[in-house]
Amino acid sequence: MRPTFGSPEQDTVAANGLLDRRLFLTGGATAALATGGIAATTAASSEALRVETWMKLPGSPFVGYGQPSRFEDKVVRIAANPPNAPGTGGARTPLHRLNGTITPNGLHFERSHSGVPDIDPDAHSLLIHGLVRRPLVFTLDALSRYPMESRIAFIECGGNGLQLYQKDPAPLNVQALHGLVSCAEWTGVRLSILLDEAGVDPKGKWILAEGADASGMSRSVPLAKAMGDALIALYQNGERVRPANGYPMRLLLPGYEGNMQVKWLRRIKVTEGPMMTKDETSKYTMLLADGKSLQFVFPQEAKSVITHPSPGLSMKGPGLYEISGLAWSGYGKIAKVEVSADSGKSWAPAVLQEPLLAMALTRFRIAWHWNGGPAVLQSRATDDTGYVQPTRAALIANRGDKVFYHFNGITSWGISETGEVKHVYA
Amino acid sequence: MRPTFGSPEQDTVAANGLLDRRLFLTGGATAALATGGIAATTAASSEALRVETWMKLPGSPFVGYGQPSRFEDKVVRIAANPPNAPGTGGARTPLHRLNGTITPNGLHFERSHSGVPDIDPDAHSLLIHGLVRRPLVFTLDALSRYPMESRIAFIECGGNGLQLYQKDPAPLNVQALHGLVSCAEWTGVRLSILLDEAGVDPKGKWILAEGADASGMSRSVPLAKAMGDALIALYQNGERVRPANGYPMRLLLPGYEGNMQVKWLRRIKVTEGPMMTKDETSKYTMLLADGKSLQFVFPQEAKSVITHPSPGLSMKGPGLYEISGLAWSGYGKIAKVEVSADSGKSWAPAVLQEPLLAMALTRFRIAWHWNGGPAVLQSRATDDTGYVQPTRAALIANRGDKVFYHFNGITSWGISETGEVKHVYA
Repeated sequence: MRPTFGSPEQDTVAANGLLDRRLFLTGGATAALATGGIAATTAASSEALRVETWMKLPGSPFVGYGQPSRFEDKVVRIAANPPNAPGTGGARTPLHRLNGTITPNGLHFERSHSGVPDIDPDAHSLLIHGLVRRPLVFTLDALSRYPMESRIAFIECGGNGLQLYQKDPAPLNVQALHGLVSCAEWTGVRLSILLDEAGVDPKGKWILAEGADASGMSRSVPLAKAMGDALIALYQNGERVRPANGYPMRLLLPGYEGNMQVKWLRRIKVTEGPMMTKDETSKYTMLLADGKSLQFVFPQEAKSVITHPSPGLSMKGPGLYEISGLAWSGYGKIAKVEVSADSGKSWAPAVLQEPLLAMALTRFRIAWHWNGGPAVLQSRATDDTGYVQPTRAALIANRGDKVFYHFNGITSWGISETGEVKHVYA
Repeated sequence: MRPTFGSPEQDTVAANGLLDRRLFLTGGATAALATGGIAATTAASSEALRVETWMKLPGSPFVGYGQPSRFEDKVVRIAANPPNAPGTGGARTPLHRLNGTITPNGLHFERSHSGVPDIDPDAHSLLIHGLVRRPLVFTLDALSRYPMESRIAFIECGGNGLQLYQKDPAPLNVQALHGLVSCAEWTGVRLSILLDEAGVDPKGKWILAEGADASGMSRSVPLAKAMGDALIALYQNGERVRPANGYPMRLLLPGYEGNMQVKWLRRIKVTEGPMMTKDETSKYTMLLADGKSLQFVFPQEAKSVITHPSPGLSMKGPGLYEISGLAWSGYGKIAKVEVSADSGKSWAPAVLQEPLLAMALTRFRIAWHWNGGPAVLQSRATDDTGYVQPTRAALIANRGDKVFYHFNGITSWGISETGEVKHVYA
């Protein structure tokens, strides 16, 4: 026997229409809502069975490498470049047009400092040198003989969400605000195996990782992370890493800010201390209110954002909807995501999609009965260290507003009576 | 302290060089092998740090939808069409060129019966009718309000591997032999929610699922599966399902033969019995030795295949290698994969990549010291029902050799002294 439900009110889990998701999952939705279901239309079969053009002629033949439908040509990354800097800047993932947790390779965000190099894999190799017993060179062919490992991991740019440090809410959508985060299955060789083979000198405490792009992007990484879960990633969602994401190999440092996960990796040098490269001194440091900077803030803190609904995806009249979004933490697994429809006055736990994986995007979902009135939607993530995503106000009170990086405060979407969704501060 | 290893012989887990994988993972490989590591080259730093062309000029700018490197243009699906049947046939995933478990959308296998229809999503809808209280029509917009669910699932064509029923081993690679299996994260709406909303008549015991391609591909599915884990899949690895895989929506029946997971889904009719469509009578039935056919064999049985090494990926001299491959079962999770390097006389357990998910591809890996002599590599999967993948001989003894479908016997790769890898029967 399936349980029945009396009314949306009886199944309310937080104010302003947040509902127990079992309402959806037990066949109760129809019984509950005198409106006649969620959004389906009762129709005469004859009308729905109209034979369209594409049923009358054979379709297109096979192609070697497939592409999305031509009707999805708006589902693209949007790029922002500083003036006079071709190939420099970021291209953002359209989070509002995707669902699930994997980002398809063509839409994975990118952040480049001098464009995407066109690397011939046969001419590329990885050098490990510095404080090691013997410097080693690894070609792609050589790496293919080493043990591989796969893990689903998010990568987030340290600058993702920086607009939310601004005084007024930027009138942007979730792609423009938070689209510098993506998630893929990465496969490669544990860096620790290669470092062991080179033989790390006991004086070595850091590594320098350098890319083969024209900017020579490089970052210092503590040896402990390099000897831990760091991977030399060769594959992204099954196929070779895409050029924009580091072809033919990149450093993967699960949970750490994206900039450190050096793309087009050509060199790892074992060093005594950090090398104070331009990208860990002039950039990717956090300027505090007192004029001092925090340097070497590596993991991305727990964060979440609602992707459906969000700006550009307007509501189609009162009734039942699913609210869904993404949560992640550079410190481990997501333990809980709560959702509020009343500006944070009341909260209800969302359902988390399994499997729950450390340092991976986690999809959350909750049922919502929109009554057609104004509402402010928020989500709040808690990770398995117990850390709770702060409000924007608390984050800024703590860090000041001169900082650029690591924005992980709560994002608010305001819903108007016409169903329009806007970025607001609340 | 890291353990050290004396020699490959001491760490042998099965005959002909299969080794304990800890040898790789504990830094023991270097110590163990007087050959000086696995495959790296000791080199002067100056040589390895050559500055290539792509480091001297800015790279290419951002694009909205990214593509693989031009150096990977051989990583494509291969298609086989019956004569005079444009768009009909199959296109196979290049399993030997991929790693991990996710198949990128551009390389997901396809099997079409009249090409790929070019469907306008605004003109497409899903009708649920037949033995229901009220027939319902769902547009894509309507479905976007329903609760979604994501799961990573393999899809395998019922005809995958059919060449292995032949008397002599086909001189083909793993793509041509077993490339009609792929794996993706699928996101969509549980069919049970939609059927509940339509109200299934107690007389309804099956459904008919029909596609909007020119062949009107249709299959009957027991109602129990339709009310279980069946999804109306709208997203594939995060983005809208690709045209070749059913855009804008397909039926996902985790573990069942691919043909039943109807693409371009336009209609579900609740019926009393199966409809005996052409694809469940003239095809997709299993002709036994006595002339009778097995009909309605739905789940794909446990199966595995080694992808590295495999034909086309030759060995580069004696030494340490990783053997890896894929295993899957339509009945649940993979519990164990064993590997043999001596034609099945001795076996050792491979390491399974986590997370272990039901009805998903599972990557397995084991270390191998190839001594340069002849070898026959095999893998054998066991699923969590206790079912063990049979030898080819046992499968044929049981079913006869007139059958086409559901080949899940053990595949054998013969290694010659020159390092060439060939499909053999053993």
